[in-house]
Amino acid sequence: MRQNNTMAIDTAELPEPTDPEDMPPVNTNPGWLSEDELAFVRGRMPVLYVEAVPVRVDGQGQVNEVGLLLRSTPEGVMTRALVAGRVRFGETVRDALFRHLENDLGPMAFPLIPASPVPAQVAEFFPLPGISAYVDERQHAVSLVFVVPVTGSCSPRQDALEMTWMSPEEALAPDTLDELAGGRGRLLRQALASVGC
Amino acid sequence: MRQNNTMAIDTAELPEPTDPEDMPPVNTNPGWLSEDELAFVRGRMPVLYVEAVPVRVDGQGQVNEVGLLLRSTPEGVMTRALVAGRVRFGETVRDALFRHLENDLGPMAFPLIPASPVPAQVAEFFPLPGISAYVDERQHAVSLVFVVPVTGSCSPRQDALEMTWMSPEEALAPDTLDELAGGRGRLLRQALASVGC
Amino acid sequence: MRQNNTMAIDTAELPEPTDPEDMPPVNTNPGWLSEDELAFVRGRMPVLYVEAVPVRVDGQGQVNEVGLLLRSTPEGVMTRALVAGRVRFGETVRDALFRHLENDLGPMAFPLIPASPVPAQVAEFFPLPGISAYVDERQHAVSLVFVVPVTGSCSPRQDALEMTWMSPEEALAPDTLDELAGGRGRLLRQALASVGC
Amino acid sequence: MRQNNTMAIDTAELPEPTDPEDMPPVNTNPGWLSEDELAFVRGRMPVLYVEAVPVRVDGQGQVNEVGLLLRSTPEGVMTRALVAGRVRFGETVRDALFRHLENDLGPMAFPLIPASPVPAQVAEFFPLPGISAYVDERQHAVSLVFVVPVTGSCSPRQDALEMTWMSPEEALAPDTLDELAGGRGRLLRQALASVGC
Repeated sequence: MRQNNTMAIDTAELPEPTDPEDMPPVNTNPGWLSEDELAFVRGRMPVLYVEAVPVRVDGQGQVNEVGLLLRSTPEGVMTRALVAGRVRFGETVRDALFRHLENDLGPMAFPLIPASPVPAQVAEFFPLPGISAYVDERQHAVSLVFVVPVTGSCSPRQDALEMTWMSPEEALAPDTLDELAGGRGRLLRQALASVGC
Repeated sequence: MRQNNTMAIDTAELPEPTDPEDMPPVNTNPGWLSEDELAFVRGRMPVLYVEAVPVRVDGQGQVNEVGLLLRSTPEGVMTRALVAGRVRFGETVRDALFRHLENDLGPMAFPLIPASPVPAQVAEFFPLPGISAYVDERQHAVSLVFVVPVTGSCSPRQDALEMTWMSPEEALAPDTLDELAGGRGRLLRQALASVGC
Repeated sequence: MRQNNTMAIDTAELPEPTDPEDMPPVNTNPGWLSEDELAFVRGRMPVLYVEAVPVRVDGQGQVNEVGLLLRSTPEGVMTRALVAGRVRFGETVRDALFRHLENDLGPMAFPLIPASPVPAQVAEFFPLPGISAYVDERQHAVSLVFVVPVTGSCSPRQDALEMTWMSPEEALAPDTLDELAGGRGRLLRQALASVGC
Repeated sequence: MRQNNTMAIDTAELPEPTDPEDMPPVNTNPGWLSEDELAFVRGRMPVLYVEAVPVRVDGQGQVNEVGLLLRSTPEGVMTRALVAGRVRFGETVRDALFRHLENDLGPMAFPLIPASPVPAQVAEFFPLPGISAYVDERQHAVSLVFVVPVTGSCSPRQDALEMTWMSPEEALAPDTLDELAGGRGRLLRQALASVGC
């Protein structure tokens, strides 16, 4: 069943295309899956994800800016995205959250992962619409969504054009919410509600 | 021990032994996995679970009783357990929670699933100790833990000897907490804290 | 400073005018305050309130209807309101929540107060705008906001024209949110986000 | 009704004796109350407090140390305390939390107030035992309790002997919990549960 074609599952971020530079030279970690294995698992199990809404806070913890990744789809459509990615086998939710934040925001961004392991929201994605508010054609995914204060400077990796910081009001504007894929405008709205925005 | 190799993964509850009567006659649902497939998945992906602490509440929502399942291990040791089980492919977290509550408490128990999809606690189980507070030798599992008020009468299924209702103080006594397997005494304590106990 | 004119503070609901029928015949409870005493306190202390968003849930706890009170202001303007009211001296938050729900929804409504004492949201009202998102000209009030499933039938008391049940989508429509006074459209949006709407 | 004897209410911390150096030279802020006024209010209204459990977190947000203030009562008994104090008229919950943390931990401590205004726990104190788990002989107080990561160095003010940092396990040991006054051992346990301890 295994083939030479070993694309790593951990690069299969929920909202973004696979990043070739994350491909492992040799597949030794049990958390790495070949494309076939990944397809097998995705058709049989809910896949656990973490998502993060990066925010800037003031000295009293009040959110005053929200960070959204700007991406271009293969068709050239601009979309907004949250930081997101799969939780690997053997990895804690905290470590997955930190890894994806570092991966998406660059090494000079300093995320302050919340002390509580309880997410701000839980989002369920199904291949077919109508089961929940969120759709992911590839899989049944369950996302633990956190709002994460970030200090330092963000330099998004290659497949994101930029990291846009905006006020909570701008982030919650219908036009912005519509630019998030897979129904995630609703998710962004819910996550920001948890911090009083 | 392996048979025609159609044991269903969804019966592989986190804390309890597999229940043969849940075995499907024909494996048609993509959420059903053979034993080999289950072993394959368990070694490569975190498996998503739900767990529930059944409680009795008074008219103002205050918890005044906590329900724990009493079980006997194959070695004859008595253990306490929460309601727990896997989330199937294509199933919402709410449906999984309801299904496992009904399965464990019987058809005359009426669980009032909380309106919020955000769990009271998230517990991470790893095959090896030291990564988190919880151990599950079989797999890397991530549990969304809910406190669920239950009305009606509970008649636990065959492999549980009884459903014991006790005061929050009794449930939090060190002796009781020690009777929960896999470090779940800590989890019960955390879940009850979320409802002010 | 004290006068004969003993209007009770506990009837001074956050969003609605004082209800004369709640006036006590004799002021013996230390939680009852004369109008002057109330004015004194309101100028010196944050006043603790509870607010509730009544909802209908399905068998799995999913919110499928949201209840809003419809009121007419003295000027004849129609407004929407949440269930809300002060926490009395000596009264628990749960009891205050139950009392105000019963008072506003009638004796045939059965609220299922959440088991957790932690509110879905905390809203801060100040007499002057700009300090927070919420304004209450009369006082500095801090509201603990809960989403409360309700069964039975609701018969709102005299000063509310009706209790309107609507889908979460209708409740979240900008037109509906704008009909709530004091900035509470935002609060309703945040409270519904906590239950995944 | 007002007298010369102007002890400030905002120094009337929940767990500790009033601090004379906080007394204002002239009582101009409406949030300052004379002793008589404070006594009047305390007998008629629930008083809003904030409490904080200072913690040290690692790079992934995991709590690895808990800070407790060590105090000596007038009778010479050693007690442990959380950071706590009243919310003033006109002050936001965030500002109150920050003010009391700065006041209790000194100017070189940097508290990272959580982005969410929803507390980890709500604790209700009544003058008489039996209504809730917490007792405060002076008043009916409602505390919003937060777990607050702190960086920098803590130098507690005069009436606290020291700030003791300990592991979550030590903080949760029955001996430690018993050293907190007013039933706050339970509250510390609940607050730490919210961060997975």
